Amino acid sequence: MSAVHNENDIAVTTRIRIARNIKSIPYPRKMTAAQAENVIKAVWDAFDNLPIKSTLTLYRMDELSSLEKKSMVERHLISTELENSKVPSAVIINGDETICIMINEEDHIRIQVFSEGLDTKTAYDSARKIEAVLSETITFDKDEEFGYLTTCPTNAGTGLRASVMLHLPAINSTKNVSPLLKWAANLGMTVRGLYGEGSKASGALFQLSNQITLGISEEEIISRFNAAACSLISEERRICADLFERNKYDLSDKCLRSLGILKNAYMISSNEAMNLVSNVCLGANSGIIKNIDNNALRKSLFTVMPATLLKNEGNLKERDRDVKRAQILQSVLADS
Amino acid sequence: MSAVHNENDIAVTTRIRIARNIKSIPYPRKMTAAQAENVIKAVWDAFDNLPIKSTLTLYRMDELSSLEKKSMVERHLISTELENSKVPSAVIINGDETICIMINEEDHIRIQVFSEGLDTKTAYDSARKIEAVLSETITFDKDEEFGYLTTCPTNAGTGLRASVMLHLPAINSTKNVSPLLKWAANLGMTVRGLYGEGSKASGALFQLSNQITLGISEEEIISRFNAAACSLISEERRICADLFERNKYDLSDKCLRSLGILKNAYMISSNEAMNLVSNVCLGANSGIIKNIDNNALRKSLFTVMPATLLKNEGNLKERDRDVKRAQILQSVLADS
Repeated sequence: MSAVHNENDIAVTTRIRIARNIKSIPYPRKMTAAQAENVIKAVWDAFDNLPIKSTLTLYRMDELSSLEKKSMVERHLISTELENSKVPSAVIINGDETICIMINEEDHIRIQVFSEGLDTKTAYDSARKIEAVLSETITFDKDEEFGYLTTCPTNAGTGLRASVMLHLPAINSTKNVSPLLKWAANLGMTVRGLYGEGSKASGALFQLSNQITLGISEEEIISRFNAAACSLISEERRICADLFERNKYDLSDKCLRSLGILKNAYMISSNEAMNLVSNVCLGANSGIIKNIDNNALRKSLFTVMPATLLKNEGNLKERDRDVKRAQILQSVLADS
Repeated sequence: MSAVHNENDIAVTTRIRIARNIKSIPYPRKMTAAQAENVIKAVWDAFDNLPIKSTLTLYRMDELSSLEKKSMVERHLISTELENSKVPSAVIINGDETICIMINEEDHIRIQVFSEGLDTKTAYDSARKIEAVLSETITFDKDEEFGYLTTCPTNAGTGLRASVMLHLPAINSTKNVSPLLKWAANLGMTVRGLYGEGSKASGALFQLSNQITLGISEEEIISRFNAAACSLISEERRICADLFERNKYDLSDKCLRSLGILKNAYMISSNEAMNLVSNVCLGANSGIIKNIDNNALRKSLFTVMPATLLKNEGNLKERDRDVKRAQILQSVLADS
């Protein structure tokens, strides 16, 4: 069961993450500032004399403004743990932000590669290449029996975590996602809402990721993960078709009203933006709304989140931020 | 103080109503069926041999379907009293529905003439001409001292009632219309919400009309009425400008969202339609929304009311009626 098409009506982004630590240097929670600096230098220097280096930028956390860091968190480039890191830490990001290496987060090195839709192959191949580059000059901490060692044992073994951001408005609208969580746990996966409180996800954005990293090959992890993602996508499609079949009027009305508000409102909060975009994409997937580029619209969401908007648009008061957000989303809709 | 411009950004329709009864025939609440038939015949025959007759149609209440009668009530052509009349009764309506004579409602004859915006002159001149036609063949019941006699003493004297339907979204949004009611009473006028419960008018449509018909000339009634209407319209404009000044963001957002929903929703109830149109017209009056023909939009409301919609569009289920209503309003917006 492989994702030949990237299913990007429902799958937004795939992320492959490989956790590694450097042998003989204490792990981030126990390291000195000097040791932390050594890790940053070792990782950055590993790319010396390689063509890829020109595409990479090293951002030291202590040199980024709080706004820049928050914006990186919003765009899922760095974790809040790295944002708030007390030891010298950094992130290496390439030009199109598909490669992002966190340094001195929970582990010394967290290689992250992003691909569009559900596409583990592209992301995994790229992450493996980066790991190979690093292993040329860095000796990773590894146990003969367990494999790669990590701060948290749940990452040990392969150190590999695959995840995909899925837009599941139909499943979300059933308001009962607990069977989904149980189903995922049975497959060794977790599903969590990316925004919003509790089990109900704001914007219906969920993240599926593998839980088991130990005692299983990397290929097996990817294969099981793809199977789980595909079956979740099928389930979303099934429920979506069923909703449309049983409740065409209400579904059409909800999606079309959201489109009308998105196209016309003077102010839109980031939370509302997520829900409106979610409904419009649901409408596009159900055939209710024509000529919508789901992925362009969903990606634009990340440019209108509070910190990213402020970073890009300068110092705006809260209401002007909501006005600017509405204008940006409206121009994306006009172009799509 | 006269309405030179017809103020039709705020004033929807003016109505002049003249109540008359025929001498020597018992009033409707006490008449026999045969006497009622005589009244219908006398009024209808009064137009014989006049050019106007070819533009008029006589509708007998007992020959109209319940749907046709309800639709006439929705369009303010007849009263619910006439709709539910127990004696033979009728209404004479001209082609463009600006003239509408109720026969055997509370009084034998209720001449009603409608004009667009605030325009008492056109309506009053036309109503007087009709009264003159009727008086050629009919002797009205009149008292030397009091003037024309009516079933309800509040209509006696001139028998003249002027009213105007006003769209007052700014006043309505202040949520406190009681000072308005008091102000009107002091001027011998009444103001009431045309739709919705209590003092809060659904769609912000209000009716201003004169209360005093006795001991005052017809010209004086019209003049005082025009003055009251103009000052109410000024007050609406003042509050509207003030709202815009103090709360541009929220006002813009409310009006633009309503426009978005009106343009895109799949289903719209008649109550929601009134409120959406009200907000869009408020937006147009505040300069927030461009290129909206307020009057075309407000008039379209009367074509999408439940009974009128069913009468025009055939037997639709409730949800299909809401779908049809949305389509009709969207085509009006597309044309305007």
